[in-house]
Amino acid sequence: MTTSAPTAEIIGILGGMGPAATADFYAKLVAATPGSSDQDHLRTVIWSDPTIPDRTEALLGDGPDPTPWLLDGSRVLREAGATVIAIPCNTAHAFVPRIAGHVGLPIVHMIGETARHLTTLSPRMHTVGLLATTGTVRAGLYQEWLNRFGIRLLLPHTTSQNDEVMTAIHAVKAGTRDARTTALLARAAQRLTEQGAQAVIAGCTEIPLGLPGEAVKVPLVDPALVLAQALIRRARAEGRIEQVG
Amino acid sequence: MTTSAPTAEIIGILGGMGPAATADFYAKLVAATPGSSDQDHLRTVIWSDPTIPDRTEALLGDGPDPTPWLLDGSRVLREAGATVIAIPCNTAHAFVPRIAGHVGLPIVHMIGETARHLTTLSPRMHTVGLLATTGTVRAGLYQEWLNRFGIRLLLPHTTSQNDEVMTAIHAVKAGTRDARTTALLARAAQRLTEQGAQAVIAGCTEIPLGLPGEAVKVPLVDPALVLAQALIRRARAEGRIEQVG
Repeated sequence: MTTSAPTAEIIGILGGMGPAATADFYAKLVAATPGSSDQDHLRTVIWSDPTIPDRTEALLGDGPDPTPWLLDGSRVLREAGATVIAIPCNTAHAFVPRIAGHVGLPIVHMIGETARHLTTLSPRMHTVGLLATTGTVRAGLYQEWLNRFGIRLLLPHTTSQNDEVMTAIHAVKAGTRDARTTALLARAAQRLTEQGAQAVIAGCTEIPLGLPGEAVKVPLVDPALVLAQALIRRARAEGRIEQVG
Repeated sequence: MTTSAPTAEIIGILGGMGPAATADFYAKLVAATPGSSDQDHLRTVIWSDPTIPDRTEALLGDGPDPTPWLLDGSRVLREAGATVIAIPCNTAHAFVPRIAGHVGLPIVHMIGETARHLTTLSPRMHTVGLLATTGTVRAGLYQEWLNRFGIRLLLPHTTSQNDEVMTAIHAVKAGTRDARTTALLARAAQRLTEQGAQAVIAGCTEIPLGLPGEAVKVPLVDPALVLAQALIRRARAEGRIEQVG
């Protein structure tokens, strides 16, 4: 059986945080969609606003609140016909509670989906490490969701967080994806596995751009890919993508 | 000097033809933009509608006219605030004359920009080869533009066009990017260079996804990259991106 199109679902991507991660997320959504021709794919509208104030700076109290930008982007997506919203930025999820009630569309929650995904892995996950922005760490986003599923979260110590993880994230945002960036992230990941992490969450959409899965000894979980797969499952469950048999 | 943001320009990308090429085009636009932080990048809205009827089939008289879909997508982009439209699909440019007067926004013409770009290469280009869909070839899009600049265009013979170029394009659209796909495109390119092509145009946005530049002996010109650079130059010329110095 081949897939059928068009489908009723229109994916809305609230992006630009950062723009390279948005392009990467859309590529993952396309690659994960079953089908053999253009017409098998989901209609998608992307609002990529890189001028949204830095999420981490806002969470650390040093910068403007990005909420108005997120609301504005959501409005653009809704008016363009989106039926669901995905936000391929971990740190931005700290602001989801502020926008969810005003968006008028369901938001597929990247961090919630990642926590659920971890419970499906074998062997069973008890302890997982997190590489993410200081904003995501401070907002407790993964701590809250993993706690719901009984999974313990390991975080890098302060020096590793600042000098390895954040340095590498800023390098990727500046367009640098070199061996040094990969080494910084690989070292931070290794510190977590040495403490017992059975998997590492690449909890900032820039991290998979700088850290290949091979560079980490345990499974590297990419929340952007988990989000893409959740969007496809959702569209399929509603009969919006027929399964290729 | 660092770049300043936000800028007034909002890039509108009329995409989905195909969706992987749209993701690739946006990644190229981001990578080509000067800047060191998210906020240095251009705001972009992308309407990716993979359900747009096949452009080549329409041009060969076998399928529905995609013009209404293109008009509809342009309207979505305009209402979302786009100030300029880019269409990262060569074949769709056959329909630009039918939509240009109705869009209400400037369209940066990928094929016109590519022809102009060829005149800037050294040594001077007299003869250039084209790998593109049969729709693009039949519509005479590159022939018309290269002719304006006094450049002769070489096309694959019918068997190469059908069995190498189109087979490879369909493979990429189906998600296949393997050695066989690369070999098909590399062989078609080689036939053109043997006839005297000084450069080869990767004249379908799927082709750079299947054919790395190293696989071709002469420069492989990527119109999607040329289009991305033209958009950035345009935004910069209007003071919308300050130059990084």
